[in-house]
Amino acid sequence: MNSKNFELISHFVPKSYVDQANQVQNSRDNQIRLLLEKRKIPDKGWPEDQVELFLGEFSLLDSNNFPDNCGLGEREGRIFSKLVSRKNYHFSHGIGRSGDLAEVQPKAIGSSVLNKLTNELVLDLLKLSGLSNVVDCIIAPMATGMTLTFCMLSIRQFKPSAKYVIMPRIDQKSCIKSITCAGFIPVIIEPNKVLDELVTNLHEIESQIIDLKPESIACILSTTSCFAPRGPDKVEDLAILCKKYNLFHLVNNAYGLQSTKITHMLNQALRTGRVDVIVQSTDKNLMVPVGGAIIAVSDKETFHRITEFYPGRASFSQSMDILITILSMGSDEYKCLLKERKECFKYLKSELQKLAQKFGEKVLETPNNPISIAFTLNNFGSNSKEITEIGSMLFTRRVSGVRVVVPGVHKSVVSNGHLFKNFGSHSSSTDYSYLTAAAAIGVKIADIDLFIKRLNKILESAKTPSH
Amino acid sequence: MNSKNFELISHFVPKSYVDQANQVQNSRDNQIRLLLEKRKIPDKGWPEDQVELFLGEFSLLDSNNFPDNCGLGEREGRIFSKLVSRKNYHFSHGIGRSGDLAEVQPKAIGSSVLNKLTNELVLDLLKLSGLSNVVDCIIAPMATGMTLTFCMLSIRQFKPSAKYVIMPRIDQKSCIKSITCAGFIPVIIEPNKVLDELVTNLHEIESQIIDLKPESIACILSTTSCFAPRGPDKVEDLAILCKKYNLFHLVNNAYGLQSTKITHMLNQALRTGRVDVIVQSTDKNLMVPVGGAIIAVSDKETFHRITEFYPGRASFSQSMDILITILSMGSDEYKCLLKERKECFKYLKSELQKLAQKFGEKVLETPNNPISIAFTLNNFGSNSKEITEIGSMLFTRRVSGVRVVVPGVHKSVVSNGHLFKNFGSHSSSTDYSYLTAAAAIGVKIADIDLFIKRLNKILESAKTPSH
Amino acid sequence: MNSKNFELISHFVPKSYVDQANQVQNSRDNQIRLLLEKRKIPDKGWPEDQVELFLGEFSLLDSNNFPDNCGLGEREGRIFSKLVSRKNYHFSHGIGRSGDLAEVQPKAIGSSVLNKLTNELVLDLLKLSGLSNVVDCIIAPMATGMTLTFCMLSIRQFKPSAKYVIMPRIDQKSCIKSITCAGFIPVIIEPNKVLDELVTNLHEIESQIIDLKPESIACILSTTSCFAPRGPDKVEDLAILCKKYNLFHLVNNAYGLQSTKITHMLNQALRTGRVDVIVQSTDKNLMVPVGGAIIAVSDKETFHRITEFYPGRASFSQSMDILITILSMGSDEYKCLLKERKECFKYLKSELQKLAQKFGEKVLETPNNPISIAFTLNNFGSNSKEITEIGSMLFTRRVSGVRVVVPGVHKSVVSNGHLFKNFGSHSSSTDYSYLTAAAAIGVKIADIDLFIKRLNKILESAKTPSH
Amino acid sequence: MNSKNFELISHFVPKSYVDQANQVQNSRDNQIRLLLEKRKIPDKGWPEDQVELFLGEFSLLDSNNFPDNCGLGEREGRIFSKLVSRKNYHFSHGIGRSGDLAEVQPKAIGSSVLNKLTNELVLDLLKLSGLSNVVDCIIAPMATGMTLTFCMLSIRQFKPSAKYVIMPRIDQKSCIKSITCAGFIPVIIEPNKVLDELVTNLHEIESQIIDLKPESIACILSTTSCFAPRGPDKVEDLAILCKKYNLFHLVNNAYGLQSTKITHMLNQALRTGRVDVIVQSTDKNLMVPVGGAIIAVSDKETFHRITEFYPGRASFSQSMDILITILSMGSDEYKCLLKERKECFKYLKSELQKLAQKFGEKVLETPNNPISIAFTLNNFGSNSKEITEIGSMLFTRRVSGVRVVVPGVHKSVVSNGHLFKNFGSHSSSTDYSYLTAAAAIGVKIADIDLFIKRLNKILESAKTPSH
Repeated sequence: MNSKNFELISHFVPKSYVDQANQVQNSRDNQIRLLLEKRKIPDKGWPEDQVELFLGEFSLLDSNNFPDNCGLGEREGRIFSKLVSRKNYHFSHGIGRSGDLAEVQPKAIGSSVLNKLTNELVLDLLKLSGLSNVVDCIIAPMATGMTLTFCMLSIRQFKPSAKYVIMPRIDQKSCIKSITCAGFIPVIIEPNKVLDELVTNLHEIESQIIDLKPESIACILSTTSCFAPRGPDKVEDLAILCKKYNLFHLVNNAYGLQSTKITHMLNQALRTGRVDVIVQSTDKNLMVPVGGAIIAVSDKETFHRITEFYPGRASFSQSMDILITILSMGSDEYKCLLKERKECFKYLKSELQKLAQKFGEKVLETPNNPISIAFTLNNFGSNSKEITEIGSMLFTRRVSGVRVVVPGVHKSVVSNGHLFKNFGSHSSSTDYSYLTAAAAIGVKIADIDLFIKRLNKILESAKTPSH
Repeated sequence: MNSKNFELISHFVPKSYVDQANQVQNSRDNQIRLLLEKRKIPDKGWPEDQVELFLGEFSLLDSNNFPDNCGLGEREGRIFSKLVSRKNYHFSHGIGRSGDLAEVQPKAIGSSVLNKLTNELVLDLLKLSGLSNVVDCIIAPMATGMTLTFCMLSIRQFKPSAKYVIMPRIDQKSCIKSITCAGFIPVIIEPNKVLDELVTNLHEIESQIIDLKPESIACILSTTSCFAPRGPDKVEDLAILCKKYNLFHLVNNAYGLQSTKITHMLNQALRTGRVDVIVQSTDKNLMVPVGGAIIAVSDKETFHRITEFYPGRASFSQSMDILITILSMGSDEYKCLLKERKECFKYLKSELQKLAQKFGEKVLETPNNPISIAFTLNNFGSNSKEITEIGSMLFTRRVSGVRVVVPGVHKSVVSNGHLFKNFGSHSSSTDYSYLTAAAAIGVKIADIDLFIKRLNKILESAKTPSH
Repeated sequence: MNSKNFELISHFVPKSYVDQANQVQNSRDNQIRLLLEKRKIPDKGWPEDQVELFLGEFSLLDSNNFPDNCGLGEREGRIFSKLVSRKNYHFSHGIGRSGDLAEVQPKAIGSSVLNKLTNELVLDLLKLSGLSNVVDCIIAPMATGMTLTFCMLSIRQFKPSAKYVIMPRIDQKSCIKSITCAGFIPVIIEPNKVLDELVTNLHEIESQIIDLKPESIACILSTTSCFAPRGPDKVEDLAILCKKYNLFHLVNNAYGLQSTKITHMLNQALRTGRVDVIVQSTDKNLMVPVGGAIIAVSDKETFHRITEFYPGRASFSQSMDILITILSMGSDEYKCLLKERKECFKYLKSELQKLAQKFGEKVLETPNNPISIAFTLNNFGSNSKEITEIGSMLFTRRVSGVRVVVPGVHKSVVSNGHLFKNFGSHSSSTDYSYLTAAAAIGVKIADIDLFIKRLNKILESAKTPSH
Repeated sequence: MNSKNFELISHFVPKSYVDQANQVQNSRDNQIRLLLEKRKIPDKGWPEDQVELFLGEFSLLDSNNFPDNCGLGEREGRIFSKLVSRKNYHFSHGIGRSGDLAEVQPKAIGSSVLNKLTNELVLDLLKLSGLSNVVDCIIAPMATGMTLTFCMLSIRQFKPSAKYVIMPRIDQKSCIKSITCAGFIPVIIEPNKVLDELVTNLHEIESQIIDLKPESIACILSTTSCFAPRGPDKVEDLAILCKKYNLFHLVNNAYGLQSTKITHMLNQALRTGRVDVIVQSTDKNLMVPVGGAIIAVSDKETFHRITEFYPGRASFSQSMDILITILSMGSDEYKCLLKERKECFKYLKSELQKLAQKFGEKVLETPNNPISIAFTLNNFGSNSKEITEIGSMLFTRRVSGVRVVVPGVHKSVVSNGHLFKNFGSHSSSTDYSYLTAAAAIGVKIADIDLFIKRLNKILESAKTPSH
């Protein structure tokens, strides 16, 4: 409501109240002005009603909400169901235009502005998280795997004859599939082992680059966040290799944004070597539903080549989830969450160590993995069935996210693809069983206590000879 | 609430009321039973409260909503903002698993079931729309362009050495980009002209197949829904060509689902020739926000190869929008909407014809295009600036979706790509200006009246010599 | 958002789009300006998103939504549950102040303004409905019965020694209770019968006035809307009597607002005689949930004496429901609904007449009752149990609101109160059974068809000799 | 969804998942069973989605939500606006029947059950709060003032010739109005002073009883929660007086539920003397929007006489707000809130004492008032304008709820009513200015800090000689 309309309320209430109303309205307008001018995450999160009002004011700028619009095109943003309209805050036109994700859609000024604003706020978030050397970013309307594929497809523009993508082994199906889906052949590099940690085998990677020839390699796909005992890849060294051999460097930073250890490592790599694109999950880092990823880049040109490359329009839903979350959270709360996660990680480690001692097991020594912890299961059965049973029991007792890994499963993820020995353990040479647990953003001490209590009970019962 | 709990309300109300409550509850349970058993769209749409209750019951089955869950993984479906949680009906885990879009996610039984149910309901919808020969379908969590890219990437599995995609010319950037994004070279075929309609040049396509060699061709990408004066491609003939030369046939049926003329043509093609995959937009056909597409296939194996090929998880948001819409709409209302659209198309045509007569213009004769109509602009200016001004005036007067096309713009959509002469008109030989208007699903007679009124005013003013 | 902030979106979108955004915003601001300036119901209803935005902007003006407010009083409008906050659109402070319903609450400027606005819009609605001689009105935060009580309590201010309230008999418990609750003794006047209609016995009323003495009579409580065969009271004649004997005249116009026949009669009474206060239900006339009533008055002084008389604050919920409804509906739609109701009434009557003919029954001749119709049940059983069974069958078959009346029930509503012979029939002399059905606002032809079908089936089965 | 329907999801997901779904569903059903069986507040609050689902299942039992209902009555619960329907969770029929607030409405089984359930849960809450000797209670759909009036109207049934209500002086307009609105003459008793506290003058009350005669006195209206320096009335002594003289005793316990000191005192009074009805505000004690009150009684018969006395139906909105709040809160959280309030009170007192010392003022000694604190303003101006300015400055700086009291205002609240000397200060003999601040439920330490900071600043600036 503009200030003239505010004056009209003097019909209903005395002048002094009108003044206060104006003052309240001004301070809100001021908040919005700051947001639009600075495009930084507010320190303090906004209350829900204010966030909704903000969205509401912009959704009125989309043509599907003009009361007197007449739409004679093939896509007019009509929404049949009021429930659907409401759940999308009356936004309907998606984002992008003519196949440029970053373009403005004339029919949808409101969503265009908010989408761009959200991208800028996410850039601020990346910097808050420690990625200060990142130059630009965009929210991709696809989860991490498909976004990695899209990035590799974009890279093909620059290097049409490349065939291979070199990837330090990571046993997640979607990582491998993201390469084959883009039409490249994954070249999987087995890790080295330092203490219990699986680390990037730089030597082997360099020989592969030389063998396959740099010009036939689309990119190196490194991974920063993973289940222990694998550690984050040595992205700084890889960045230097990429610089040396003029290779694209794509980083799968799926849930690495939440660890300053990882972001600082990446930031260093951006500064000293070559990192072209860093992809991170929105759900894993920002506590929104699955469906988006953040593409962060180190130079403006790459950025434009990527966003222009996108064929068509896309859902605005993911951006909206992020915008609402960022505005409601504020940077103060975000920093608290990062701090809390770090403390939970330490607590989880120490609690697992106590349990390890009790059951004669071991928490694997993986000093570089700041999120996931592996706990051996040497004394819980002689065959894989007995050990995997522990996983089922955890699932049934509503512990989610914990994985039990037993060596001996050999698998090729895609038909006729690379055969992964001991799939799930990130290494052909794994010879023990273990479980992994992670302290991810949003976890609470109470979750860990509950987990330890349930795990303890299961391990106790598993130890007991069954009848 | 189970029936035992219903009995407990007898503490509060007399027996006869408990009986009525039970009866109401049973008839609702029955509706749900029918839905889950038959997996067909209900005839009559459900009221909003019932739809929400249904979603609510399933969202409780996702682990992020278990009150006593403890999540120790890297993705636990936590949602920071209650607004975001609510707008996603508390679903957070997305769909798919380990890179198979059709797989069940153990952490998310509720969304897994609803997602699968929605796919089956959409299959029913395709059949209702006339595509009875389609065998299976899935909602892709990406809009039409990126979904076409994904389908072409999938085709590469079967034909790794293919380089080309043959496409009868359609001047939409995202169609062309969808090919180049997938890493293929578009081979654009100029149309023939029959009456005023631009029709598929089958002869030229066959010579290209022979010239380029079938084994180097990934697929033919045909288009059924487009702006007049282009007509839908002759998919039946193309299907026969594809069968003859053993070529994949991918159909961009963007907004063709809403026209039985088009679906019957496609159905015929499925029966007599080769059609592998038909892609259609969810927003354009189902009146949901932009963001999804339906991949329909003619055989089960192709289907599995495609869904398995997807790298990673994806947003559930699009499926949810569709599920809510389908349940709220019911098949009766859907049929009404199709019928209403058809009538609006006729009305739009006749109204434009009246206007054409008044202004000495012509409605182009494009008998096969059942959705879009072209109206010449011969008498409204000597240069392109004057004519495109009509487009701006329509935009300013809140007529959306109408395009003014003026020949003379030559453009290559992607860098170093094919040069399109007279871009926007689908043909190098276009030598007149025109505007297009479409009668798409959800349009009302009142919209058309408003449009005609505004257009008439603009044309009148444009005719007046300016000062 | 103010216009300066709008300018800031030029960072994200080209100038021409900013202009359109401004234009959209201005036309919305204009709508609000008109509303606040004229305080008339808009012709065309507003879309939902606009209504919510409007509420949202005002709720920010209530102190419980100030981000930096600190509340050190005993009532600070804190809301524990976000669900409750949301369902109340974040309004929490209620309405009124220090026991004046019409007063502004300094802590709650937003709700104070909206509450006053709503009252003015309701006044417009009363006038639209035909009550042009009403001078002011207020929404009472209580349903009709308690509001009538409150009005009678107010009247006691003016006439402290009065003991009686004269009421032409109406067999609704809450009407009688409203009198006794206010501490008065109801003097019930049996009706006369004209054709089949029960009409006000003016003669008997005048003798009672004379007998009891005008100074001992608090008011006459007349009723305009009722179940056939009772007709609306002769309010014009009663108004003249009240004028003659200087008596307060309180009208229970529960659902009479929806009938122009009734409102015109009332309007006439306002002009020629004495009508002090007219009370109408909000749920029955405006299709909102139960809980409010409209107190309309014929002079400003009475109005102030009533609103000042209210002890304390009250719920804003009822006003909000009305405000949302009025803004969403618009006056055009309201007029349509009134017209549609009238037609439904005619249709219901003619359909019941057909049924009456078929079953040898009669639609009672009650020419002055424009809403309710009575249908005899002479041939459906010899005892009351058999006949009332028809009511149960209708209830079980989900026909609601139809009442079966069988003479012979004698009842006093309040302990030691007046004994009503043939309670439910509004007359001691009723000697036949009947059912009543009404065509109230919002009813559809389809409802009537369904009712007639079900009633027909029940009557057919009731006729068949049972085994 | 019943268990049979759950079985049907085995079409979509493997058996083990169906089992987990069943398990989840069962544990939820169990929670509901417990609630309906025990009718006690759950220990742990329910998550929002579960609360909404629970409401949703019951709203389906109201006839306005039956898909095949046809309504032919005058009130069919139709809701015009979907926004209104949604904000009322699709409940429309209100509560009560034929003027009995506690009765079941056949058209609305769902809301009838929930309303009764809510009353039982509120009874549990009263007992949790310390009122264990209360026998029954009901939520009145009116705020405290009008509810007090209604209770006094009910008392008139038992004592038709009574004229007076004795009330120890409390300077709140709505308390006085509640008496006059009910048609009684308030007999105001000036307090005694003990330390700085204004306490009930029992001696004067007893002489008034004797003077006026017990049979002419409707009741004693005592007040437990009030602004310092007034203390809670000596309800135990008053209860003994009432017993002795056979007088009704009505307690205005507006916000006393939140203090165990007050509830224990009341509980004692219930046990040893006579307390008939205790009325408390729902907004002030339960953090819901203004609009309801809780009527608690000491014997079943009084209870029935009151609920039966209500004329007509009433809004369900207030009960719903309470039900949602209670279920979301759980008893554990409620106890925490009570404890937190108590600590905030202590903190507020000690912070004010520090400030008093700094500015040469005094925190008044009112040992029995557990919620409100008075702070003298002796050194801030020679005239009332200067001192009241402090109140305005607090208001402008967004401190709400703090009152500045300056003696010298003499006022009669109702026309021709009792003249209150030094209105606002609860005593004719007040000879100093002061401000009051309260620590009410929901207040946080941060609020107090903010208040103290702002107050300090204002007092500092007020001290400075102005130019």
